[in-house]
Amino acid sequence: MTALPAGATIGIMGGGQLGRMLGSAAAALGFDVSIYCPESDCPAARVSATHVQGDYTDIDTLLAWARACDVVTYEFENVPVEAAQALIEAGILVRPGAKPLEVSQDRLVEKAYLRECGIQTADFAEVNVADDIADAIGRFGDKAILKTRRDGYDGKGQARLETGDDYEAALKSLLRAPSILEAMVPFDCDVSVIIARDRNGESVCFDIPRNEHVNGILKRSVVPASVSEDVALRAFEAAKALADALDYVGVLALEFFVLEDGTLLANEFAPRVHNSGHWTPEACATGQFEQHIRAVAGWPLGPVTRFHDVEMLNLLGEEALVPPEALAADGVLTLYGKRDAKPGRKMGHLVRRRD
Amino acid sequence: MTALPAGATIGIMGGGQLGRMLGSAAAALGFDVSIYCPESDCPAARVSATHVQGDYTDIDTLLAWARACDVVTYEFENVPVEAAQALIEAGILVRPGAKPLEVSQDRLVEKAYLRECGIQTADFAEVNVADDIADAIGRFGDKAILKTRRDGYDGKGQARLETGDDYEAALKSLLRAPSILEAMVPFDCDVSVIIARDRNGESVCFDIPRNEHVNGILKRSVVPASVSEDVALRAFEAAKALADALDYVGVLALEFFVLEDGTLLANEFAPRVHNSGHWTPEACATGQFEQHIRAVAGWPLGPVTRFHDVEMLNLLGEEALVPPEALAADGVLTLYGKRDAKPGRKMGHLVRRRD
Repeated sequence: MTALPAGATIGIMGGGQLGRMLGSAAAALGFDVSIYCPESDCPAARVSATHVQGDYTDIDTLLAWARACDVVTYEFENVPVEAAQALIEAGILVRPGAKPLEVSQDRLVEKAYLRECGIQTADFAEVNVADDIADAIGRFGDKAILKTRRDGYDGKGQARLETGDDYEAALKSLLRAPSILEAMVPFDCDVSVIIARDRNGESVCFDIPRNEHVNGILKRSVVPASVSEDVALRAFEAAKALADALDYVGVLALEFFVLEDGTLLANEFAPRVHNSGHWTPEACATGQFEQHIRAVAGWPLGPVTRFHDVEMLNLLGEEALVPPEALAADGVLTLYGKRDAKPGRKMGHLVRRRD
Repeated sequence: MTALPAGATIGIMGGGQLGRMLGSAAAALGFDVSIYCPESDCPAARVSATHVQGDYTDIDTLLAWARACDVVTYEFENVPVEAAQALIEAGILVRPGAKPLEVSQDRLVEKAYLRECGIQTADFAEVNVADDIADAIGRFGDKAILKTRRDGYDGKGQARLETGDDYEAALKSLLRAPSILEAMVPFDCDVSVIIARDRNGESVCFDIPRNEHVNGILKRSVVPASVSEDVALRAFEAAKALADALDYVGVLALEFFVLEDGTLLANEFAPRVHNSGHWTPEACATGQFEQHIRAVAGWPLGPVTRFHDVEMLNLLGEEALVPPEALAADGVLTLYGKRDAKPGRKMGHLVRRRD
């Protein structure tokens, strides 16, 4: 495929806020957007030309939808690998493909893949029974986190452990799902690289944000991250190694712990635009959503020049329900159009200049 | 009405690129958007939650649509006044109301209204028969433009005249529509004020662009306009006088000729967001589309701080069909999703930083 012309249809699997912001970015470039998701009403569908409601496992419906699209992408990493594969086998262009889903959906596979790419991670071990924890935790320095291999997000499906804790109880709390034990690392800060890679293998990285989590949920990203140039370069190289290994087309986010001595330990990656990049449309020549759309449409990437220092604040749950004047007095407000402000739910964000 | 909460529905009459950009701005603030227009497929509907196809004269359909909206606005000035009035009489909140349509749809009424607001214009005269032209043109300095009172845009429905020309032929070329003769003024440049006014009467003006037209169609807007501070202040005051007189809620654009001696002559106004303000989303803290949505939703206006010098280039007809890499290499590209690139048709625009 050469570059898609304006007026082509970009299909997005997933209907949340990332799909909504991708959809608006695609519309600004003249594309039509079609959303596929299981919900009858969703934030992304409300800004898109068409919407098909269907389960990801309903391959017939999914295929019929995809055949009306010129390219298909996804906005969340838990689209079943089989769904992406079925589309690809039917000759549909899926960017960034099935492999990034396969790798990122399983923390154990993901960590092993990162290491294969030459990217350092914290120590980890496969956990199926309590003895697996007992075997590993001592080697990890007596402190570790037990995580389900699949389906965890925003801090869910995790348990912190120390040597001598009740490992059986911990496994039970995770419903005895296949798990991974990860060494706790004393990190100085938490950063991410948002990389965009085009179909020719050219890639660009946005400046690195420092990310602050509360209860496992991203609360704030600040740019610049105040890491040294050397740390930044190593983080960019790691993200490029990962994106190249996956022959990735689109935007990908790789999260790191930065230790006091500058060591970078990759934590996980998301094969999609990322919450820690929500400041990019306001602060950069090209935002992450536009970059992803450019890449999947076969267009060249735009410049990632950052024009000013910036912070992004997530609005969680009822934080987004205060009067608009209080929210929007200072900074650029984005709300996601979600109907229900459950506690901790990402409802919107605020981007503030810092210069 | 107090401020609309996020999740409320903003109804827009009109489905073109201005509706599309208003719709995307509304979505970013968490609103749902509903489009009413006569076309079955249009640029704005493809980024909006709902779309009702109907004529503006089909009041039953229009009313049924409007009753599902929390506020109704319009994206073009030729919505019939009767349509807006019917909605208002049915108790529907229409911002900025019917009056701005009534005034701006008739060049003669418009010019008279501007003068009533204390705003200077070029000389003008009502024209129904050839003698009306003969009477006025000498007083106007032997050069004038004949324009239909209604339905002209982008230079259509106009004829340039000099004393002694065939006035009958000129009237015939305008299909003998009721017309206005306007004195030709030797202007130095052409600028516009884009003003946003909220429901409490507070207003803010964006920095003034200098506008370059080719064949009557806007080609380029450059900011700053290089007019003196005094000229800018008088232009702002005129726009404020007009918006206050109309008790306007939303964004309005007032166009001026600037004479060599700094005299400002108002040409026309548009009761809507304006092509000469398309640089504002990229260059300002709050863009014109967001300002209009804030105002009609009863939200406070945002700051209009401009962060850098800028130019906006319209992409007309086939100019938008070149490969995307050629278009988007330098600047922020917006394409409107129009299906047919007719010559001179506004297909998109490019915004470039100039610092």
